[in-house]
Amino acid sequence: MTHEAAFIAALRALATDPAARGLRDDAAVLPVAAGDLVLTHDMLVEGVHFLPDDPPGDVAWKLVAVNLSDLAAKGAAPLGLLMGCGLAGGGPDGDDTWDAGFVAGLGATLAAFAVPLLGGDTVRMPPGGPRTLGLTAIGRAPACGAPIRGGARAGDVLWASGTIGDAGAGLAIARAGRGDATLRDRYRRPAPRLAAGIALAPHVTAMADISDGLLIDAGRMAEASGLRAAIDLDAVPLSPALAAWGGQDRAARLAAATAGDDYELLFAAPPSATATLLALRQPLALNLTPIGWFEAGTGLALTDRAGAMPLPERLGYEHGA
Amino acid sequence: MTHEAAFIAALRALATDPAARGLRDDAAVLPVAAGDLVLTHDMLVEGVHFLPDDPPGDVAWKLVAVNLSDLAAKGAAPLGLLMGCGLAGGGPDGDDTWDAGFVAGLGATLAAFAVPLLGGDTVRMPPGGPRTLGLTAIGRAPACGAPIRGGARAGDVLWASGTIGDAGAGLAIARAGRGDATLRDRYRRPAPRLAAGIALAPHVTAMADISDGLLIDAGRMAEASGLRAAIDLDAVPLSPALAAWGGQDRAARLAAATAGDDYELLFAAPPSATATLLALRQPLALNLTPIGWFEAGTGLALTDRAGAMPLPERLGYEHGA
Repeated sequence: MTHEAAFIAALRALATDPAARGLRDDAAVLPVAAGDLVLTHDMLVEGVHFLPDDPPGDVAWKLVAVNLSDLAAKGAAPLGLLMGCGLAGGGPDGDDTWDAGFVAGLGATLAAFAVPLLGGDTVRMPPGGPRTLGLTAIGRAPACGAPIRGGARAGDVLWASGTIGDAGAGLAIARAGRGDATLRDRYRRPAPRLAAGIALAPHVTAMADISDGLLIDAGRMAEASGLRAAIDLDAVPLSPALAAWGGQDRAARLAAATAGDDYELLFAAPPSATATLLALRQPLALNLTPIGWFEAGTGLALTDRAGAMPLPERLGYEHGA
Repeated sequence: MTHEAAFIAALRALATDPAARGLRDDAAVLPVAAGDLVLTHDMLVEGVHFLPDDPPGDVAWKLVAVNLSDLAAKGAAPLGLLMGCGLAGGGPDGDDTWDAGFVAGLGATLAAFAVPLLGGDTVRMPPGGPRTLGLTAIGRAPACGAPIRGGARAGDVLWASGTIGDAGAGLAIARAGRGDATLRDRYRRPAPRLAAGIALAPHVTAMADISDGLLIDAGRMAEASGLRAAIDLDAVPLSPALAAWGGQDRAARLAAATAGDDYELLFAAPPSATATLLALRQPLALNLTPIGWFEAGTGLALTDRAGAMPLPERLGYEHGA
């Protein structure tokens, strides 16, 4: 059996849901109830989104997690995944160790999120071509409808889940090869907030995930809503591990709020929902923190205990910037 | 505006379906009726599945067409597409001409098949990295249920749609840079048999598309059905253009039956359905030809007017071979 055939056989062993048809048919066939489907597709490219020496199981985790985070932001429950997998080019036998680690990690990830692999495609990249991964995630929208990015209203409170900036520190730690493993794993193994997304959806007016940076993603929510977002930088929740790693001063908070890769939820809700939202923290075992509000205007307004402050030059990751 | 941002803006102009949310939300939200969805994902990699000097509009067409062909094989009507697009690496301005040609071709292709672009991801490959495209197609299964690859029964007739081998000749013509443009375009712009798939689905016991070669795909249908497929090579339909290009002798027929990229439909149906199927040729304006049958056993049995003949060494394209 060739390397590519062995890889496909290993994927077949993971694709046990009947909808996958054993990865032996032209397509997956998935029964669905009437309603809204939520669909997303994100790519990870070696040398761009991950490094050749990143553990392959972590790459598999991140590929799944970043797509499930998009579903979480729409309050959706995952139904299944389709994966496009461009294996490393080069020798006829491929890279057995990397590919085996990737499949093992993928299997563990599918089990962790209880989401089935339904189908996809495996190809060999040309010699020297980077590993290139694409994943489509399909979910079921909540009964209340999938929240939109641009639904915030003037007077709504802006909230964030979890803690912000851990992954930014984790990237630096992963690059340095030493440091707090908890922070590093927040970068390598982000936790999509699926349960929180489902629980929050009925109460929010807008929701998105924080992938490119809290400030830039809040700015996009404000722009899509035709409003200004006012953010209290001191209210942005930092983890004790992050505070220990980089402090909590203004520079540290700005770094956290612009780093990206958090995969936390950013959402808007009317002030009347505040008690309801705070009460969700315990069953979700997740921090939910008011960090600002929406008002008439455009762009972002940033304050801290010293008062209004200028926006940093870089608000987060901009595609094509 | 950077090149990548301009590319995304051009895609937004194509993604006019409300489900796409203007490509500005975390995910697409698609209302569906209760029933079976059909889902497929295929990749095209530069240097593997297409060449740097292939017209970019043809690459866009093929990306969409090969995925819609998988839907056609399951009798499905397309609902939408998500695209993962890895633009050429290199200079900061990318390749404006290629990318603009690709988006224009994609727009024309979406219009030709009346299928909406719902979402996806655009990334820049690392310097020197090949353009890498992935497409997920979502369709609605027919009311009779999506035909499976492995549903053929002993005694069923094996059929093929259209003509076989044109794309194989077309690839040779494209490589040579001269020859019959009709054959060349059968390679560059395959026609997914969507209307035929929908019309045939209620009458077939098994269906698949012919992507890797008639013989290898028939062998897979036989294997999945636990049967042997007997194929009359003389019955395999060749186009007049192919016959003029390469003749109709045994070698030419074997080349046609093993070339692949046909994107025709291969299906099994009981003999009692023969008249019904033949009557579909006129409304579909498409050849439907009985080319063999299924019987107890395994593998393929090949005959022509001279009687039983040995199988060629290569039955078609094998992934990882």
